Amino acid sequence: MTTDKNFVAINYIDCTAEYVDRFEELFATRAGAIDKLQGFQHMHVLKPKEPGGSYLVVSYWESEENFKAWTTSPAFLEGHKRAFADMAKAREEGKTPPMKSSFKVYDIISR
Amino acid sequence: MTTDKNFVAINYIDCTAEYVDRFEELFATRAGAIDKLQGFQHMHVLKPKEPGGSYLVVSYWESEENFKAWTTSPAFLEGHKRAFADMAKAREEGKTPPMKSSFKVYDIISR
Repeated sequence: MTTDKNFVAINYIDCTAEYVDRFEELFATRAGAIDKLQGFQHMHVLKPKEPGGSYLVVSYWESEENFKAWTTSPAFLEGHKRAFADMAKAREEGKTPPMKSSFKVYDIISR
Repeated sequence: MTTDKNFVAINYIDCTAEYVDRFEELFATRAGAIDKLQGFQHMHVLKPKEPGGSYLVVSYWESEENFKAWTTSPAFLEGHKRAFADMAKAREEGKTPPMKSSFKVYDIISR
Protein backbone atom coordinates (compact mmCIF):
# COMPACT_ATOMS: atom_id res chain seq x y z
CA MET A 1 0.00 0.00 0.00
CA THR A 2 1.30 3.40 -0.96
CA THR A 3 -1.51 5.64 0.19
CA ASP A 4 0.82 8.62 0.57
CA LYS A 5 1.48 8.68 -3.18
CA ASN A 6 -2.00 7.90 -4.43
CA PHE A 7 -4.24 10.86 -4.01
CA VAL A 8 -7.39 11.37 -6.06
CA ALA A 9 -9.69 14.39 -6.21
CA ILE A 10 -13.12 14.10 -7.81
CA ASN A 11 -15.11 17.15 -8.80
CA TYR A 12 -18.79 16.15 -8.97
CA ILE A 13 -20.57 18.45 -11.41
CA ASP A 14 -24.28 18.83 -12.09
CA CYS A 15 -25.14 20.77 -15.24
CA THR A 16 -28.47 22.17 -16.31
CA ALA A 17 -29.83 20.41 -19.42
CA GLU A 18 -29.20 23.59 -21.44
CA TYR A 19 -25.55 23.72 -20.39
CA VAL A 20 -24.48 20.12 -21.07
CA ASP A 21 -23.22 20.69 -24.63
CA ARG A 22 -21.25 23.75 -23.60
CA PHE A 23 -19.83 21.91 -20.58
CA GLU A 24 -18.58 19.06 -22.78
CA GLU A 25 -17.14 21.52 -25.27
CA LEU A 26 -15.14 23.21 -22.51
CA PHE A 27 -13.43 19.93 -21.68
CA ALA A 28 -13.00 18.87 -25.31
CA THR A 29 -11.09 22.10 -25.88
CA ARG A 30 -9.47 22.46 -22.46
CA ALA A 31 -6.38 24.62 -22.17
CA GLY A 32 -4.35 21.97 -20.38
CA ALA A 33 -3.33 24.47 -17.72
CA ILE A 34 -3.42 21.73 -15.08
CA ASP A 35 -1.13 19.35 -16.95
CA LYS A 36 2.12 21.08 -16.02
CA LEU A 37 1.39 21.40 -12.32
CA GLN A 38 3.76 19.76 -9.87
CA GLY A 39 2.50 16.36 -8.78
CA PHE A 40 -0.29 16.18 -11.36
CA GLN A 41 -0.49 12.70 -12.86
CA HIS A 42 -3.53 12.53 -15.11
CA MET A 43 -7.26 13.18 -15.26
CA HIS A 44 -10.43 11.72 -16.70
CA VAL A 45 -13.74 13.42 -17.36
CA LEU A 46 -16.53 10.89 -16.86
CA LYS A 47 -19.90 11.42 -18.52
CA PRO A 48 -22.79 9.60 -16.82
CA LYS A 49 -24.63 7.15 -19.03
CA GLU A 50 -27.75 7.79 -16.96
CA PRO A 51 -29.44 11.01 -18.11
CA GLY A 52 -29.29 13.71 -15.46
CA GLY A 53 -26.43 12.08 -13.54
CA SER A 54 -23.40 13.98 -12.28
CA TYR A 55 -20.28 14.37 -14.37
CA LEU A 56 -17.07 13.41 -12.58
CA VAL A 57 -13.74 15.09 -13.17
CA VAL A 58 -11.24 12.67 -11.64
CA SER A 59 -7.69 13.93 -11.13
CA TYR A 60 -4.73 11.92 -9.84
CA TRP A 61 -1.96 13.62 -7.85
CA GLU A 62 1.18 12.59 -6.07
CA SER A 63 -0.10 14.17 -2.86
CA GLU A 64 -2.96 16.16 -1.39
CA GLU A 65 -0.54 19.10 -1.04
CA ASN A 66 -0.02 19.13 -4.82
CA PHE A 67 -3.79 19.16 -5.34
CA LYS A 68 -4.31 21.98 -2.83
CA ALA A 69 -1.53 24.01 -4.43
CA TRP A 70 -3.35 23.72 -7.77
CA THR A 71 -6.66 24.98 -6.36
CA THR A 72 -5.00 28.22 -5.29
CA SER A 73 -2.79 28.62 -8.37
CA PRO A 74 -3.07 30.90 -11.42
CA ALA A 75 -3.44 27.67 -13.47
CA PHE A 76 -6.69 26.92 -11.64
CA LEU A 77 -8.16 30.28 -12.65
CA GLU A 78 -6.78 29.89 -16.18
CA GLY A 79 -8.22 26.39 -16.53
CA HIS A 80 -11.67 27.47 -15.35
CA LYS A 81 -11.91 30.96 -16.78
CA ARG A 82 -14.47 30.18 -19.49
CA ALA A 83 -16.70 28.32 -17.03
CA PHE A 84 -16.33 31.07 -14.44
CA ALA A 85 -17.32 33.62 -17.12
CA ASP A 86 -20.43 31.56 -17.94
CA MET A 87 -21.34 31.46 -14.25
CA ALA A 88 -20.79 35.20 -13.83
CA LYS A 89 -22.94 35.93 -16.89
CA ALA A 90 -25.82 33.83 -15.55
CA ARG A 91 -25.54 35.59 -12.19
CA GLU A 92 -25.61 39.04 -13.83
CA GLU A 93 -28.68 38.04 -15.84
CA GLY A 94 -30.44 36.68 -12.76
CA LYS A 95 -30.53 33.16 -14.22
CA THR A 96 -30.08 29.77 -12.58
CA PRO A 97 -26.37 28.86 -12.35
CA PRO A 98 -25.60 26.52 -15.28
CA MET A 99 -23.74 24.11 -13.02
CA LYS A 100 -22.93 23.20 -9.45
CA SER A 101 -19.77 21.44 -8.42
CA SER A 102 -18.13 20.05 -5.31
CA PHE A 103 -14.81 18.32 -4.67
CA LYS A 104 -14.36 15.14 -2.70
CA VAL A 105 -10.92 13.72 -1.99
CA TYR A 106 -9.69 10.14 -1.67
CA ASP A 107 -6.74 7.85 -1.17
CA ILE A 108 -6.25 4.83 -3.41
CA ILE A 109 -6.12 1.90 -0.99
CA SER A 110 -6.17 -1.00 -3.44
CA ARG A 111 -5.71 -1.74 -7.13
CA MET B 1 -12.40 11.15 -28.49
CA THR B 2 -12.70 7.41 -28.13
CA THR B 3 -15.80 7.03 -26.02
CA ASP B 4 -16.47 3.54 -27.37
CA LYS B 5 -13.25 2.24 -25.79
CA ASN B 6 -13.34 4.13 -22.52
CA PHE B 7 -15.92 2.68 -20.25
CA VAL B 8 -15.85 3.17 -16.48
CA ALA B 9 -18.04 1.58 -13.82
CA ILE B 10 -18.07 2.96 -10.28
CA ASN B 11 -19.48 1.01 -7.39
CA TYR B 12 -20.42 3.48 -4.64
CA ILE B 13 -20.25 1.71 -1.29
CA ASP B 14 -21.42 2.89 2.12
CA CYS B 15 -20.17 0.82 5.04
CA THR B 16 -21.33 0.88 8.63
CA ALA B 17 -18.64 2.20 10.98
CA GLU B 18 -18.21 -1.32 12.41
CA TYR B 19 -17.59 -2.82 8.99
CA VAL B 20 -15.00 -0.39 7.61
CA ASP B 21 -11.91 -2.35 8.74
CA ARG B 22 -13.30 -5.60 7.37
CA PHE B 23 -14.26 -3.89 4.11
CA GLU B 24 -10.74 -2.57 3.62
CA GLU B 25 -9.28 -5.97 4.50
CA LEU B 26 -11.40 -7.62 1.81
CA PHE B 27 -9.86 -5.37 -0.84
CA ALA B 28 -6.33 -5.57 0.59
CA THR B 29 -6.54 -9.35 0.20
CA ARG B 30 -8.73 -9.51 -2.89
CA ALA B 31 -8.65 -12.69 -4.94
CA GLY B 32 -8.04 -10.89 -8.22
CA ALA B 33 -10.85 -12.81 -9.88
CA ILE B 34 -11.74 -9.77 -11.97
CA ASP B 35 -8.23 -9.24 -13.35
CA LYS B 36 -8.42 -11.93 -16.01
CA LEU B 37 -11.79 -10.94 -17.41
CA GLN B 38 -12.01 -9.99 -21.06
CA GLY B 39 -11.85 -6.24 -21.53
CA PHE B 40 -10.88 -5.50 -17.92
CA GLN B 41 -8.22 -2.78 -17.82
CA HIS B 42 -7.62 -1.84 -14.20
CA MET B 43 -9.33 -0.76 -11.01
CA HIS B 44 -8.85 1.56 -8.06
CA VAL B 45 -10.46 1.43 -4.65
CA LEU B 46 -10.88 4.97 -3.36
CA LYS B 47 -11.18 5.63 0.36
CA PRO B 48 -12.90 8.91 1.24
CA LYS B 49 -10.80 11.28 3.32
CA GLU B 50 -14.01 12.68 4.78
CA PRO B 51 -15.26 10.40 7.58
CA GLY B 52 -18.52 8.68 6.65
CA GLY B 53 -18.11 9.28 2.91
CA SER B 54 -18.73 6.60 0.29
CA TYR B 55 -15.95 4.32 -0.90
CA LEU B 56 -15.62 4.13 -4.68
CA VAL B 57 -14.53 1.04 -6.57
CA VAL B 58 -13.61 2.38 -9.99
CA SER B 59 -13.11 -0.18 -12.77
CA TYR B 60 -12.00 0.54 -16.34
CA TRP B 61 -13.20 -1.66 -19.20
CA GLU B 62 -12.84 -1.74 -22.95
CA SER B 63 -16.61 -1.71 -23.33
CA GLU B 64 -19.86 -1.76 -21.39
CA GLU B 65 -20.47 -5.27 -22.75
CA ASN B 66 -17.28 -6.49 -21.05
CA PHE B 67 -18.44 -4.95 -17.77
CA LYS B 68 -21.91 -6.49 -18.03
CA ALA B 69 -20.40 -9.89 -18.83
CA TRP B 70 -18.38 -9.65 -15.62
CA THR B 71 -21.45 -8.89 -13.46
CA THR B 72 -23.07 -12.14 -14.55
CA SER B 73 -19.89 -14.26 -14.48
CA PRO B 74 -18.62 -16.84 -11.97
CA ALA B 75 -15.70 -14.43 -11.37
CA PHE B 76 -18.16 -11.85 -10.00
CA LEU B 77 -19.48 -14.32 -7.43
CA GLU B 78 -15.95 -15.49 -6.65
CA GLY B 79 -14.68 -11.94 -6.19
CA HIS B 80 -17.53 -11.01 -3.86
CA LYS B 81 -18.09 -14.24 -1.98
CA ARG B 82 -16.64 -13.10 1.36
CA ALA B 83 -18.67 -9.88 1.26
CA PHE B 84 -21.81 -11.75 0.22
CA ALA B 85 -21.26 -14.16 3.14
CA ASP B 86 -20.96 -11.20 5.55
CA MET B 87 -24.20 -9.77 4.17
CA ALA B 88 -26.01 -13.11 4.46
CA LYS B 89 -24.81 -13.55 8.04
CA ALA B 90 -26.11 -10.10 9.03
CA ARG B 91 -29.44 -10.90 7.39
CA GLU B 92 -29.75 -14.21 9.23
CA GLU B 93 -28.99 -12.48 12.51
CA GLY B 94 -31.53 -9.73 11.85
CA LYS B 95 -28.81 -7.06 11.85
CA THR B 96 -28.38 -3.95 9.73
CA PRO B 97 -26.62 -4.79 6.44
CA PRO B 98 -22.92 -3.90 6.88
CA MET B 99 -22.85 -2.10 3.55
CA LYS B 100 -24.92 -0.79 0.69
CA SER B 101 -23.65 -0.45 -2.84
CA SER B 102 -24.80 0.77 -6.22
CA PHE B 103 -23.15 0.91 -9.63
CA LYS B 104 -23.08 3.94 -11.89
CA VAL B 105 -21.57 3.78 -15.37
CA TYR B 106 -19.71 6.37 -17.42
CA ASP B 107 -17.85 7.12 -20.63
CA ILE B 108 -14.51 8.91 -20.51
CA ILE B 109 -15.05 11.98 -22.72
CA SER B 110 -11.83 13.85 -22.04
CA ARG B 111 -8.38 13.36 -20.51
